[in-house]
Amino acid sequence: MENDLNLSHHISKRFNEELEEVRNQVLKMGGVVEQQVREGLKSLLDADQGLAQRVVDTDIEVNTLEVEIDENCTKILARRQPAASDLRLMISIIKTITDLERIGDEAAKLGKNALKLHDDGKIARQFIELRHLGEHVSATLNKALTAYARLDVNEALEIIQNDRFIDEEFDNISRLLITKMMEDPREIKSALRISWCARALERIGDHTKNICEYIVYLVKGKDVRHTSIEEIKQTITE
Amino acid sequence: MENDLNLSHHISKRFNEELEEVRNQVLKMGGVVEQQVREGLKSLLDADQGLAQRVVDTDIEVNTLEVEIDENCTKILARRQPAASDLRLMISIIKTITDLERIGDEAAKLGKNALKLHDDGKIARQFIELRHLGEHVSATLNKALTAYARLDVNEALEIIQNDRFIDEEFDNISRLLITKMMEDPREIKSALRISWCARALERIGDHTKNICEYIVYLVKGKDVRHTSIEEIKQTITE
Repeated sequence: MENDLNLSHHISKRFNEELEEVRNQVLKMGGVVEQQVREGLKSLLDADQGLAQRVVDTDIEVNTLEVEIDENCTKILARRQPAASDLRLMISIIKTITDLERIGDEAAKLGKNALKLHDDGKIARQFIELRHLGEHVSATLNKALTAYARLDVNEALEIIQNDRFIDEEFDNISRLLITKMMEDPREIKSALRISWCARALERIGDHTKNICEYIVYLVKGKDVRHTSIEEIKQTITE
Repeated sequence: MENDLNLSHHISKRFNEELEEVRNQVLKMGGVVEQQVREGLKSLLDADQGLAQRVVDTDIEVNTLEVEIDENCTKILARRQPAASDLRLMISIIKTITDLERIGDEAAKLGKNALKLHDDGKIARQFIELRHLGEHVSATLNKALTAYARLDVNEALEIIQNDRFIDEEFDNISRLLITKMMEDPREIKSALRISWCARALERIGDHTKNICEYIVYLVKGKDVRHTSIEEIKQTITE
């Protein structure tokens, strides 16, 4: 599959290496935010303050990676003046890391809310729906990053298609939380925090979907954002 | 100020025109989302259903502009292989329009919530704090787009510095809404909607700040994301 991108087709060995390097940096950044999301969720559900703080602190690492990768892309664009699929690779990376950075931001919010819930003497463990949503979002991000590494447009399509289930789960949680708040107004503050966490997870799902759209763009050369699933399917089979 | 970018320094007249064109498209897209934010807020505060629907529908126009501008940037990168400030212009545009598109998404959420509040028989008018936050965010976006058009790094710095006031206003509204919900649990559902709107406004503030960071990058050639205000000040005076 990897050969679709023809990363090794350049006469300049150094250019090949540069492209591989920047792609590896993106995969590394993906790994970091994936772990951040998983640990953010865990810190929330287990009321683990130490872990929550580490999740918040990881933000700096993610931000540094974003800036470094952007710099490398700019250097490659300036020195190598890439065309065709190399240029698409650069553009898709510049876009992808913006979404990865924002996934990191949302994961850090999970950690921050875990710390605040702890301060309020509450834990999120009882919200089984939040665990479901979190595991779903986490698994989807993992699949998307694998699809990114393998340039797997079919897997990307499936993730784009399934994003609506994440939205539905989020809506369900919102409804449940409203009921909970109405039943016991003393729970309003903590329920609101849980609702921020659910929102953060839903946004991680959105950013994951964006990354999948860039996979299609990279491999197929067509921008499928804001188009229908049918159009994306057609693009992929073309 | 405009000359800082040297848009007219190229031997190829056509290249000059292409850069001007794409920059004008960004300014146009900025104008569209700015109006969308203003009208989204108005539809919410005035419970104006027709306006709310128009705000939601504008999303398509914003999305189309994003895709068109991205395409134009890719074409310029491929054909003209820009270097130095021209390359920075391309990269800053690719980044800026992502934030503009997301501002459009958040504005559309204001419209959607205005429609839902109307369905629930509620209006947001009484939330004077939401009006303040909305007007503040709206005015900041206007300033940022003017700074973008004029390449005004000092104004950009001021907006970056003042983002924390928007965050503070958002925190205030959240606290007020919690109190409101606790006082009258029947208001929980509508208060939650208002809180989504406040969150959307706060995020518009974040995206506006991002745009200002790209202005500094474009003019000064330095990536100031994730750095301190002091470092940004130093970059600007260098």
